[in-house]
Amino acid sequence: MERVFAEYLIETPYDVEQASAVLAGEQSSGTFVSVPGETEELKKRFAARVEDIQLLDVSDEPSIPGGSIPGKKYQKARVKVSWSIENFGYNLPVLISTLQGNLYEITQFTGLKLMDFEVPESFQNYFKGPKFGIKGSKLSCGVADRPMIGTIIKPSIGMSVEETAALVKSLIDAGIDFIKDDELMGSAANSPFDERVKAIMKVIRDNEQKTGKKVMYAFNISDEIDEMQRKYDLIKKEEGSCAMISINSVGLSGTKKICDQGELVIHGHRNGWGMLNRHPLLGIEFPAYQKIQRLAGVDQLHVNGIQNKFWESDDSVVTSIKSCLKPFLGGYEILPVVSSGQWGGQAVETYRRTQTTDLLYMAGGGILAHPMGPKAGVNALQQAWTGAVDGLSVEETALKYPEFAASVKKFSK
Amino acid sequence: MERVFAEYLIETPYDVEQASAVLAGEQSSGTFVSVPGETEELKKRFAARVEDIQLLDVSDEPSIPGGSIPGKKYQKARVKVSWSIENFGYNLPVLISTLQGNLYEITQFTGLKLMDFEVPESFQNYFKGPKFGIKGSKLSCGVADRPMIGTIIKPSIGMSVEETAALVKSLIDAGIDFIKDDELMGSAANSPFDERVKAIMKVIRDNEQKTGKKVMYAFNISDEIDEMQRKYDLIKKEEGSCAMISINSVGLSGTKKICDQGELVIHGHRNGWGMLNRHPLLGIEFPAYQKIQRLAGVDQLHVNGIQNKFWESDDSVVTSIKSCLKPFLGGYEILPVVSSGQWGGQAVETYRRTQTTDLLYMAGGGILAHPMGPKAGVNALQQAWTGAVDGLSVEETALKYPEFAASVKKFSK
Repeated sequence: MERVFAEYLIETPYDVEQASAVLAGEQSSGTFVSVPGETEELKKRFAARVEDIQLLDVSDEPSIPGGSIPGKKYQKARVKVSWSIENFGYNLPVLISTLQGNLYEITQFTGLKLMDFEVPESFQNYFKGPKFGIKGSKLSCGVADRPMIGTIIKPSIGMSVEETAALVKSLIDAGIDFIKDDELMGSAANSPFDERVKAIMKVIRDNEQKTGKKVMYAFNISDEIDEMQRKYDLIKKEEGSCAMISINSVGLSGTKKICDQGELVIHGHRNGWGMLNRHPLLGIEFPAYQKIQRLAGVDQLHVNGIQNKFWESDDSVVTSIKSCLKPFLGGYEILPVVSSGQWGGQAVETYRRTQTTDLLYMAGGGILAHPMGPKAGVNALQQAWTGAVDGLSVEETALKYPEFAASVKKFSK
Repeated sequence: MERVFAEYLIETPYDVEQASAVLAGEQSSGTFVSVPGETEELKKRFAARVEDIQLLDVSDEPSIPGGSIPGKKYQKARVKVSWSIENFGYNLPVLISTLQGNLYEITQFTGLKLMDFEVPESFQNYFKGPKFGIKGSKLSCGVADRPMIGTIIKPSIGMSVEETAALVKSLIDAGIDFIKDDELMGSAANSPFDERVKAIMKVIRDNEQKTGKKVMYAFNISDEIDEMQRKYDLIKKEEGSCAMISINSVGLSGTKKICDQGELVIHGHRNGWGMLNRHPLLGIEFPAYQKIQRLAGVDQLHVNGIQNKFWESDDSVVTSIKSCLKPFLGGYEILPVVSSGQWGGQAVETYRRTQTTDLLYMAGGGILAHPMGPKAGVNALQQAWTGAVDGLSVEETALKYPEFAASVKKFSK
């Protein structure tokens, strides 16, 4: 029978084998005392198996405070556990409850993180996956051999519909490929969702008629299910190509319900991610997280960026980008969205370490606060990527392109 | 204009006022450089406000590893922030993205936890809240002046439909009020959801006809939206009274969509909670979490239990129970579900510290592994609660009731 495999980073003051057995028991047929029905036959078919244990380093203090036991050492290990597909079938929330449920609360662990997981190929028959992914996203806005260049409406919140539409027009005139609502912007008092969509889509349609280029705008539809659906339908009616969902706030089932319709590119915003990932020994690592989102059908997913304004390290960002670009179930393409404090200067390092232009490269202030105006801001980003792909350094790129040089002067630290 | 207030526990190596201002900026109108549109008028209307800062203790090391700066101290503080309701209206996912979004990733913080939040009374006009809550849950299964006594089908997974129905029959004969699927059990290969519902509901209806008591069974409907709806409708058709949702795995929008229908009691299982809460300075505290679930309309919510098998302290469990019992928006009742390693012995301490019987008190192994059989297991739990309410100690209760005495002998450590 096919199995699902999960890999955890754990830490325990107890015997690692015993602690791992508790994990496997808790997450399949066991409870805190043996009960009459737990027969050997049942265990053989449904019990989770500890497949592999690799011991790592030992420390004197627990990674998560509160579980300290005097005189004990805390052993870290990589533990691989598997479950039969018979346990949950193709039910994504029940799979998540199995991989990421009560196990975080088990006393035996002073740290536990889901690092990655593997599902059998039969999942292809039950999950549509991203409809547009990398190729579909780039095709939709006419981008080929470079990253899509995108921006976020800033200030995040507070601009009127008219001001936003005017800003969208100037960004489109500047040559942008992609624009998005901020995740804080749903339907603010002075920018009701419907009016915003209508005003912005008019600008986008007008530009498309004139130039043939359809700029992608990710309207933030995050909301209750029926209201998300209504907003999705409005975007379609207005000939929009994309909707944004705050995937952690909406949740998995709501996100999948929208993704499965496959008529709009779904831009997955991972705000709240820090809560799930910031501690090195608690939560979930991105290689596992992005697979869940690909099963849900998200087309574009945030990965932070090199030299970002947040806490995340460059190594972690590179790992995230690479995990998105790795085929899953033979495809299930998802476009990495690079953002946070980006202004173009990071293009060289991003390309050097990932060797890809299959990115949506987002700059907020980096475009709108460009000293020569937004058009120069967009140009500077394109120049940065041309320089990066041509193997130039930041300095060499700046010498060649005046708009990028102005960015370097203003934004580099 | 009405405002939403949130209270955070933060830790920072920087100036607390400046760090708090960054939080407020990031979560409203700001970005990493000032942009032309962020006028004073816009800031006045939409910017988040830091309302209060209370300094707490200082430590030499950051609570979350990775942000250490040589020579710096790490100041903890309680910070209260507010937003105008104009920012998000009554959109729950956008509210969550505001309260629990990118702020966890801000470099200025080496720890951040949402402790509690307050919403204005006008939320009552937009959120139905729990339809059944405490009174409706107890009424549905005919329980008045004591906790509902419940159990979980164990082994969690692996029993056939017939075995499960037979177990349900013996539990009902034993006098149980409430039974639930384990969260790992959705539709296992040998226990398809539909067949399980039909077989179990037949047992429950037969008993109701005979005795007038309708035992509540929480069938785990966690799944994609359409499939959850189908399962919900099947339970209604079979005259069931309750459905269970793994609220973190399904997510907020999916959960609310089901709750809002108000025809079944919704049992909210919080598996995955450890990931959101286990670190003292990351994630969300239960008083905030339970409010979100009440806004979503969850009727019953897990709170762990005194002397549980997991990592959580008794103090934390007591705080959780009390937060559920505190009226929210003038009502929005939610029934605390006490579970994990419970066998009755904890009733005395639970009652002493909470002075309530408005609980669903769950025991798994504590009932099914009772040495005198499940009927004695249920009796022992009822006896435990009678003793607790009568002010008896565990020992005094054991002297009075032989079934409870047998529990003490087998389960107490």
